[in-house]
Amino acid sequence: MTPNPSGEDSLIARYFKPLATDPGAFGLVDDAAIIPADGDDIVVKTDAIVEGVHYLPDDPPDTIARKALRVNLSDLAAKGAVPAGFVLTLALRQADDAWLSAFARGLGEDAAAFGCPLLGGDTVSTPGPVMVSITAWGRVPRGRMVHRFGAHPGDRVMVSGTIGDAALGLGVLAGRAEAAALADDPAARDMLIGRYRVPQPRNALAAAVRDFATASMDVSDGLAGDLSKLCVASGVSADIALPHIPRSPAAAKLLALGAAQLESMISGGDDYEILCTVPAAQCAAFRAAAERAGVAVTDIGAIVEGADVPRFLDGQGRPITLTRMSFSHF
Amino acid sequence: MTPNPSGEDSLIARYFKPLATDPGAFGLVDDAAIIPADGDDIVVKTDAIVEGVHYLPDDPPDTIARKALRVNLSDLAAKGAVPAGFVLTLALRQADDAWLSAFARGLGEDAAAFGCPLLGGDTVSTPGPVMVSITAWGRVPRGRMVHRFGAHPGDRVMVSGTIGDAALGLGVLAGRAEAAALADDPAARDMLIGRYRVPQPRNALAAAVRDFATASMDVSDGLAGDLSKLCVASGVSADIALPHIPRSPAAAKLLALGAAQLESMISGGDDYEILCTVPAAQCAAFRAAAERAGVAVTDIGAIVEGADVPRFLDGQGRPITLTRMSFSHF
Repeated sequence: MTPNPSGEDSLIARYFKPLATDPGAFGLVDDAAIIPADGDDIVVKTDAIVEGVHYLPDDPPDTIARKALRVNLSDLAAKGAVPAGFVLTLALRQADDAWLSAFARGLGEDAAAFGCPLLGGDTVSTPGPVMVSITAWGRVPRGRMVHRFGAHPGDRVMVSGTIGDAALGLGVLAGRAEAAALADDPAARDMLIGRYRVPQPRNALAAAVRDFATASMDVSDGLAGDLSKLCVASGVSADIALPHIPRSPAAAKLLALGAAQLESMISGGDDYEILCTVPAAQCAAFRAAAERAGVAVTDIGAIVEGADVPRFLDGQGRPITLTRMSFSHF
Repeated sequence: MTPNPSGEDSLIARYFKPLATDPGAFGLVDDAAIIPADGDDIVVKTDAIVEGVHYLPDDPPDTIARKALRVNLSDLAAKGAVPAGFVLTLALRQADDAWLSAFARGLGEDAAAFGCPLLGGDTVSTPGPVMVSITAWGRVPRGRMVHRFGAHPGDRVMVSGTIGDAALGLGVLAGRAEAAALADDPAARDMLIGRYRVPQPRNALAAAVRDFATASMDVSDGLAGDLSKLCVASGVSADIALPHIPRSPAAAKLLALGAAQLESMISGGDDYEILCTVPAAQCAAFRAAAERAGVAVTDIGAIVEGADVPRFLDGQGRPITLTRMSFSHF
């Protein structure tokens, strides 16, 4: 008689053990994993995504896995940390082979691409929506994590990539105005949908953030709300030039057609870009480091004194009023 | 105009920020936490509990929080690690003040009692059952984590505390035979229910495990199945003396009344005791260390050569046949 592994154990062995090649994972046969710290600080982040809330039930399973990992990688990047590993909690209604195979493939590819190995996990059954909870670690030299606090008046406010694409992609998937306006532009539709389903965390920018930023966070709940959080943590305010907020060609097209509003683009979520503040004298060096890293960065305004919420100024320098700062669960 | 925190942010600020007093948590106002490693290995464990699966919907909220943290603390103890901190992902249907207050109170009391501070978290909405996912860390001196593998023929099989109480407590809560048999014994009923709702992780035993055990894991899915996993990982088998398996007075009473079967007690889950193997020559020293730690340990059998599933021998030395080794989700 040989031992008869349970369904849960065989599920883990089949789909996730092949991904757990890091020595600290012990092939997922042990009850815990090891992170050797080697004198660095270990930076920890946890973020969960829920079916129907953070992704759509018919999203491709590999993109669900990628999104679950990447939302955490994005935080590590903003903190200036280099990814070191992650653990996964997967709550499933049932063990569906096709879904799990695709999910594990996407997860494994991203773990390899970002150098962030699977170290362990837990698989539980739920009668409710699927939930993917990931806790990820990174390393920074001791004391060098970049915080939300630390922005000073005069610092420039920099943002990576483009803002608003993911919120517009969700609009396309939901068949809203964005879908109709891009009916004849499948490439633009696909780009926006891709930005919603598979964030592009800016881990390549982590070293530049660590070297030059006074404060940093990732934009996950909307630029307006997240900048407000950074300002509160730093005890400052900001003046942002709306025309300078970087947008993709697809977003620019939707704005021009009146099928998108800048206000909803800066309060929608899921950007997963880096928002950081850089002393004016260091901006050229930061830009050069970002260029070497292959990540576009844009100066969108300045940190100013005060405790007001950040002001978003239109082309004539008039502040606009935002009715909704960011996405919130409750 | 002052910043207007979202519902999610105010929920975190209200209930969880008061718990995040560790310097590495940065008061939960940053996007990540820091674990200073100081040359130790960081041991990582993640475990989730789901409403209706791991706990009952009407369990007191403070016990749900305690159980979520303690199932992870139990793993750290079995690995010989000292708790260092945890992050929490909480998936809720709605933000209910009474529920959250009690949940946060239980979590904070246990974090303090076990020296395992809250370092961060994520709160998400779900239309499904509540899910509490915790990832916890501990420290061990470099290279000293105790694994599932490492048991040798001749080693004694040791288990902490008593086995089967939690499964019987669930039977009481479900109104099964256990409830009827203990109709006149509320103290026994309460003890068993308490063992189901609030595990007693054996963190006090961690140093003894690290000093003396060749292999170790916690008993969470049933003694029979978990011992089988330890044996597979170690490439050995085991002979266990059923009469020696430690049981509480309440469990002994139920067994005597025929309202419980030893077989289901060793295949039921939720014990959260430590199962470890100790060289025969070290058993006296291990017992003495356990006694100093205030944790009862019992010798239940021996590791033997072979690849068979562990044998459970009755009072006459005859092996019994188990139809079900352990709890599995799928």
